[in-house]
Amino acid sequence: MEIKLDEPILGYNNRLAERNRALLAEHQVFMLNVMASPGAGKTSLILATIEALRQQFALAVIEGDIASDVDAQKIKAAGIPAVQINTGGACHLEAAMIERALAALDLKALDLVIVENVGNLVCPTDFDLGENARVMILSVPEGDDKPLKYPGIFEAAQAIVLNKVDTLPVFDFDSDRFAASVRALNPNAPILSLSSKTLEGLDGWVSWLAKQATCVVA
Amino acid sequence: MEIKLDEPILGYNNRLAERNRALLAEHQVFMLNVMASPGAGKTSLILATIEALRQQFALAVIEGDIASDVDAQKIKAAGIPAVQINTGGACHLEAAMIERALAALDLKALDLVIVENVGNLVCPTDFDLGENARVMILSVPEGDDKPLKYPGIFEAAQAIVLNKVDTLPVFDFDSDRFAASVRALNPNAPILSLSSKTLEGLDGWVSWLAKQATCVVA
Repeated sequence: MEIKLDEPILGYNNRLAERNRALLAEHQVFMLNVMASPGAGKTSLILATIEALRQQFALAVIEGDIASDVDAQKIKAAGIPAVQINTGGACHLEAAMIERALAALDLKALDLVIVENVGNLVCPTDFDLGENARVMILSVPEGDDKPLKYPGIFEAAQAIVLNKVDTLPVFDFDSDRFAASVRALNPNAPILSLSSKTLEGLDGWVSWLAKQATCVVA
Repeated sequence: MEIKLDEPILGYNNRLAERNRALLAEHQVFMLNVMASPGAGKTSLILATIEALRQQFALAVIEGDIASDVDAQKIKAAGIPAVQINTGGACHLEAAMIERALAALDLKALDLVIVENVGNLVCPTDFDLGENARVMILSVPEGDDKPLKYPGIFEAAQAIVLNKVDTLPVFDFDSDRFAASVRALNPNAPILSLSSKTLEGLDGWVSWLAKQATCVVA
């Protein structure tokens, strides 16, 4: 007999995630779950995405952090509604946290909700939030071997962003080796190379996201 | 009434950690727990530390990863005993894993065991492995705001390494702001700035570690 210890927790989470998904569908809101290591550039990419898409979509951001509200303050400074979730130690967001954050937003007035998960390449993978799509960001300084070491998150994403490509001359990062490792885990997700700082390559990412969102937003 | 769900797991871990600590003390072996984000440079710093200290101490390395043995292979290529732990999904090492790894090493012949934890700024903090000291590495590309967002790991470390300082000209990293944030959480831990690539600043780190280890090693 096998005892599945993770079933009760994940089963409960999955039920709440389905409820979030239904609520979002009812309001024709697209929700994106952004996952990455600490410092890979989640907030910077979200800020650049806001600037690129704010004419086309009504946006809001849900910020997940262990502590502090520095990211939510950056989003609010851009004039976009932001809800800060402090997990108080938990290494990932859960559907129950998102449910409360969605209740704090005016979904009727929104098209696109971007969720910034806790900086972590492991724990967020197991927790469905009710999102329409997941993007995983790796940054060049982290190294091209990360798909070998953290395969789950590369498998779980619908798109892989390679960020900070402006620093490729500074780091020993083999883009071909990285792409081959990602392909072995996830043959379908596009690998979108860009720099949130110089904005090179941002168009490819923004087009991908806009296309996904347009399928949901009326 | 308060139910402390984390007590049974952590209580069990702590008992095994004490057993590891006793075993290491019996053999006068110093064990260092290295914690950081994915790609912060844990393996590179360990390799540079090996080169700096291999004449002075008999070294071994325990590598913790979700999957793969790429890091253990790098250590073995340097001629140092290495044990790879694959956590199979778990986001941190636990004392029970270290117990098995220590059993695979010839402790009588060793002075210094370096443990590379899973790349994660959250989960490893709660799990005592039986180590003598913990070092936390942050790399410049991750950004100076990380102490605000991941306070627990900065509080738990006996030394903070700021790695990849050769890339300070490329990133917007405010060293003074970083130091002030660390100080607010952990007034006693030294902040050791270095680059495992250019080796600038390595001496400060190596001296700190050698001094800690010398107190334990006969």
